[in-house]
Amino acid sequence: MNINPLEIARHASRIDELSINTIRFLSADAVQKANSGHPGAPMGAAPMAYVLWDRFLQHHPEDPKWPGRDRFVLSAGHASMLLYSLLHLTGYNLPIDQLRQFRQWDSITPGHPEHGLTPGVEATTGPLGQGVANGVGMAMAERILGNTYNKPCHEIVDHYTYAILSDGDLEEGVAYEAASLAGTLGLGKLIYLYDDNGISIEGDTDITFLDDIHARFRSCGWQVLGPVDGLDLDAIDRAIRQGQSCKQKPTLIIVTTTIGYGSPSKAGTGSAHGEPLGDHELDQSRQALGWDLPPFDIPDEVIAHTRSAIQRGRRLQSAWKTRFEAYRREYPTEATAFESDVNGELPEGWDKGLEELLGTFTSPVATRAVSGKAINAIANCLPRLVGGSADLAPSNNTNMSGRGDFGPENHAGRNLHFGVREHAMGSIANGMALHGGVSPYTGTFLIFSDYMRPAIRLAALSKLPVIFVFTHDSIGLGEDGPTHQPISQLMGMRLIPNLTVIRPADPDETIEAWRIAASSLSRPTALALTRQVVPPLSTVGGDNVAAGNVSKGAYILRDRTGDPEILLIGTGSEVQLALSAAMILEQEGTKVRVVSMPSWELFADQSKEYQESVIPPLVRARVSVEAGTPLGWERHIGLDGEIIGLDRFGASAPGSTLMKNLGFTAENVAEASRRVLRANQAKGLFDPHKLCCVDTFCANGEPWR
Amino acid sequence: MNINPLEIARHASRIDELSINTIRFLSADAVQKANSGHPGAPMGAAPMAYVLWDRFLQHHPEDPKWPGRDRFVLSAGHASMLLYSLLHLTGYNLPIDQLRQFRQWDSITPGHPEHGLTPGVEATTGPLGQGVANGVGMAMAERILGNTYNKPCHEIVDHYTYAILSDGDLEEGVAYEAASLAGTLGLGKLIYLYDDNGISIEGDTDITFLDDIHARFRSCGWQVLGPVDGLDLDAIDRAIRQGQSCKQKPTLIIVTTTIGYGSPSKAGTGSAHGEPLGDHELDQSRQALGWDLPPFDIPDEVIAHTRSAIQRGRRLQSAWKTRFEAYRREYPTEATAFESDVNGELPEGWDKGLEELLGTFTSPVATRAVSGKAINAIANCLPRLVGGSADLAPSNNTNMSGRGDFGPENHAGRNLHFGVREHAMGSIANGMALHGGVSPYTGTFLIFSDYMRPAIRLAALSKLPVIFVFTHDSIGLGEDGPTHQPISQLMGMRLIPNLTVIRPADPDETIEAWRIAASSLSRPTALALTRQVVPPLSTVGGDNVAAGNVSKGAYILRDRTGDPEILLIGTGSEVQLALSAAMILEQEGTKVRVVSMPSWELFADQSKEYQESVIPPLVRARVSVEAGTPLGWERHIGLDGEIIGLDRFGASAPGSTLMKNLGFTAENVAEASRRVLRANQAKGLFDPHKLCCVDTFCANGEPWR
Repeated sequence: MNINPLEIARHASRIDELSINTIRFLSADAVQKANSGHPGAPMGAAPMAYVLWDRFLQHHPEDPKWPGRDRFVLSAGHASMLLYSLLHLTGYNLPIDQLRQFRQWDSITPGHPEHGLTPGVEATTGPLGQGVANGVGMAMAERILGNTYNKPCHEIVDHYTYAILSDGDLEEGVAYEAASLAGTLGLGKLIYLYDDNGISIEGDTDITFLDDIHARFRSCGWQVLGPVDGLDLDAIDRAIRQGQSCKQKPTLIIVTTTIGYGSPSKAGTGSAHGEPLGDHELDQSRQALGWDLPPFDIPDEVIAHTRSAIQRGRRLQSAWKTRFEAYRREYPTEATAFESDVNGELPEGWDKGLEELLGTFTSPVATRAVSGKAINAIANCLPRLVGGSADLAPSNNTNMSGRGDFGPENHAGRNLHFGVREHAMGSIANGMALHGGVSPYTGTFLIFSDYMRPAIRLAALSKLPVIFVFTHDSIGLGEDGPTHQPISQLMGMRLIPNLTVIRPADPDETIEAWRIAASSLSRPTALALTRQVVPPLSTVGGDNVAAGNVSKGAYILRDRTGDPEILLIGTGSEVQLALSAAMILEQEGTKVRVVSMPSWELFADQSKEYQESVIPPLVRARVSVEAGTPLGWERHIGLDGEIIGLDRFGASAPGSTLMKNLGFTAENVAEASRRVLRANQAKGLFDPHKLCCVDTFCANGEPWR
Repeated sequence: MNINPLEIARHASRIDELSINTIRFLSADAVQKANSGHPGAPMGAAPMAYVLWDRFLQHHPEDPKWPGRDRFVLSAGHASMLLYSLLHLTGYNLPIDQLRQFRQWDSITPGHPEHGLTPGVEATTGPLGQGVANGVGMAMAERILGNTYNKPCHEIVDHYTYAILSDGDLEEGVAYEAASLAGTLGLGKLIYLYDDNGISIEGDTDITFLDDIHARFRSCGWQVLGPVDGLDLDAIDRAIRQGQSCKQKPTLIIVTTTIGYGSPSKAGTGSAHGEPLGDHELDQSRQALGWDLPPFDIPDEVIAHTRSAIQRGRRLQSAWKTRFEAYRREYPTEATAFESDVNGELPEGWDKGLEELLGTFTSPVATRAVSGKAINAIANCLPRLVGGSADLAPSNNTNMSGRGDFGPENHAGRNLHFGVREHAMGSIANGMALHGGVSPYTGTFLIFSDYMRPAIRLAALSKLPVIFVFTHDSIGLGEDGPTHQPISQLMGMRLIPNLTVIRPADPDETIEAWRIAASSLSRPTALALTRQVVPPLSTVGGDNVAAGNVSKGAYILRDRTGDPEILLIGTGSEVQLALSAAMILEQEGTKVRVVSMPSWELFADQSKEYQESVIPPLVRARVSVEAGTPLGWERHIGLDGEIIGLDRFGASAPGSTLMKNLGFTAENVAEASRRVLRANQAKGLFDPHKLCCVDTFCANGEPWR
């Protein structure tokens, strides 16, 4: 068949054309080989990505973590082969075999880019909209570090943040939230290229998405350029320069492209989006774009050209190092602090403020209030701590006193104001952690963790040291009612792999929780804190609230008899109920042990010996109390105890009324304990005093599960 | 102290002024009495709310469910006292004592409005942004019903949808998503009043929110009016009329207000937002606004005036009934169908299409594909079924053939296109269910249930019959990788009260799941479906895949020996592994039972006798297999079995490779079973054949828990 030769690109040298086609076919061929993936976006966006990486992006393929580098986020993560092609071509440690192994077990070229897995991947993307907000967080981190460390004639922090966005990114609410905040804050070094190909999976975007993007982003305070022709390298080049020259506003460049460009019968259609082109169509595309090399073959001159990024990277880095050494001579203290921040090290004595706080709370206090003190205690010793709330700072106690507000007029402040944008808050905090040099925390009510759940999950998947503060952590919040009362959220976060969830029970547990969170450098932490006051456990019968116990996840809080017949396990504001119930049961001659369990994940990390020393496998008479969903508690209670929780939504009334009316009382815990003891004694099972059972156990000697 | 008298309102008659002040002080006094709540918004928004309700809103306080009524959503749910005041004043069944009991146990005036609890409350609001999307869903439902049932000169469906929005609503991404779709679809009968008071909890909105709202909403295809003075009744009146007159676009009216208007020292400040004014400040406000009545006293003339809404409501309803009877005469079939749709009844034989589908799948097929057939089978008998996907219809199999696409040019189509807007999709579906007359379903990947979790939760809290279709429900989806593979989402939904989650294992279970979902009229249902093919269970050793079993939540799928030593429990695509493992174990002489457990909630609804007939309490040797988080499975497995699940994120590779490499094989299930049997025999515990245990059990006769 006869195919019209297509323009490869406009205003392009031969090497430009060869490089762009190399990217297109590496991408399409890898998708074809994997028989899975997204060829369309890479083929359409190759020219803009090439111009950005070839002419603008300041990076160092041999040192992907060089702090002076520009950041690039592929928010349209489904175009992963575009990024993998660029990383391979510019000399990152991503061999061609990895591109051949696209989407295969044990490869480092997964379906969507994963930070930490592949050198040069700055953010884990794919869930749409996240990358848009990650980039905003990176640009905020750049400004905070710059305003902290830069000195006249010593701009050691000065880089751009770029991203390529898709239609889908811009349809997601999180992207709007982030864009609105970026515009409000005037993040001038943020430059986004919008791959406007007009196609979504269900067809033409006109059926769902008629936004005037130009006007919409202007209304949020952005400089908006274009539409520019996605094939015109000079036009793309000019737009990026114009973006760089505007220092007061973030820039969105609308780039008009054709999805699957080069594919004679699929270009511009939804079928080019998410499935291989097919061998025949790939042949046709090769003819159309004048490409006669077999899959994964790369012209030597292209490699020679694109690998010049290595030399450029070396020059850039050494120039930056020279600047940094000059900086060190004039500002030795700041230089050391900068390096420590960027390396994410915890300086000597960073937690001495927490040490001093321990034991200072002697009367009932809300754990959210203690958390506020802890934040400030850490901030005094760890200046890189930055954070804030989604418009609930006074309720979340997340404000750091005397550290300034990061706002349109002040890019030095450490208190962040996210507005009522929980989802973007989470993704922006992720972006700050990805950038490095700052330690971000967020704040909102626990109920609104649902709004930011996709960001919490990506923090866990990406192993980011982000701290998520959640206050108003139960029906104890009271009158706001069921719309605001978390029932499933606490257990819901325990379900997320690689997330540490801590629900402290009293002031010292809260201080310890913060020490653990701030020193957790490769996983996020979620803190669940009360609105209502709770007593220091030591004042209500807790015998063993020693520092360090929280880090074990669970510990024996009270056991005055030893050899317990029944275990009472609680978390947070309900631990005090377990203690009161224990004292009732003790008076009745019951041998009872109270376990405080602030963190299931930390407990799971302990040795089996420790776990069984706290929760003896033979003691099956167990009662738990936590003002949340019972589902999940069977992990610790098993089938022979009782779980005191909430299998319903809450209600609107004073918190103390709710706790009482919904069964969270010491007497109710005690009565449940009596029921459990009766039932278990009746069954006669797992009673450590029943010889038969112990015998079979000992006789066999198999370890308990 | 000397207080300047304030304008109560502008262009207002005396009765207007009295009524507006009544609303202001009912609100502020109720908050004061409750010592909790939000006085500021009601005091500032009272004039606009009064104008809307007094001059425009077509409703019937004596029949809050009259289908012809306009819909009103208070998206700013924290201003609940504004709504409660209006409901009481206009004659809904909400006595003044309920206002006195604001935010108290057992009252029907909770902290935030709850649909179903309080007559006249059209939507549960408080979590910001939700109401904005609910209203869009209501307006879509109105258009769909209108285009279905209206005939020339017989407009039986013809009403407006109004809402009052706050700054916080507009900062939330879900509100942007919904606004973008509403503009794209040209929903002309949607009229929103934006209470622009410039104040958020952390202070002036300028620190976080500099959007040009006028330009932003225009860019999304809205008519934008104002800013109008929030005190000027005539200006508000004119704007609403102008909104009504624009039929092609939704209208946003920007109304400039002062939060806490009337409070001399707190008006226009954040402290007027979320806490009682205090007795002294309330006195000062009374002086400032010239109000001398004690709390909860209402001038007779105000009641006389506002209660005229009852007479107006009767007239409106009877006029509508006359129109409807005329319609019935000319279109009897349609009239009956309309009534049945509005009443949410299931017509005779609505599920005969499903009946015919049962047993027709004899070879392996993806449950998402079967779901697509089921949707179409239902749609043929239940025209009120409407739904679609967040741009994944071809993958979710959610398209209804031959039923048209609801789009800018066609408000009659039943296939909805939400764009990449999962959160708004959920809230819009909720709004459609709240409107009534249509039965909405949504579609996306299970991983993106996280994006819409706040909407799913509100559907459950509001008892809405919404069906959430989630496909690609495990690592079985394959190459897209961990960013797209749900690990915690399935169990995460099981945590939500009043939500039915069903994960069918094969074609017939899927068809039954749809029958249950479509006939569930007072709670939402989430369906978890596979991307990969699964065999009909009857072709791989399932003995008992009878229709009706799914409705029991769990059932005995295979038990050829009776008196089982071990239970294998699975869901969805992993049930086949339990069956294969059982056959291996049977060959080894093990007495094994396989249980398919498609729905935990439905199983929990069964009698204790049935539950124990499926899962005998004495058989503690149990193994579960589900490709998701293990946490939660202890509910059925206890402490003496094994849970085969995923405590990590997934990986990018072909689905079959992932299943194999991550331990989801029949041999692994069999090996786990052998371990469990050994360990339990060793313990000698809960072995029904061990007299000692059975004895103690029988001797006592206490029911097992």
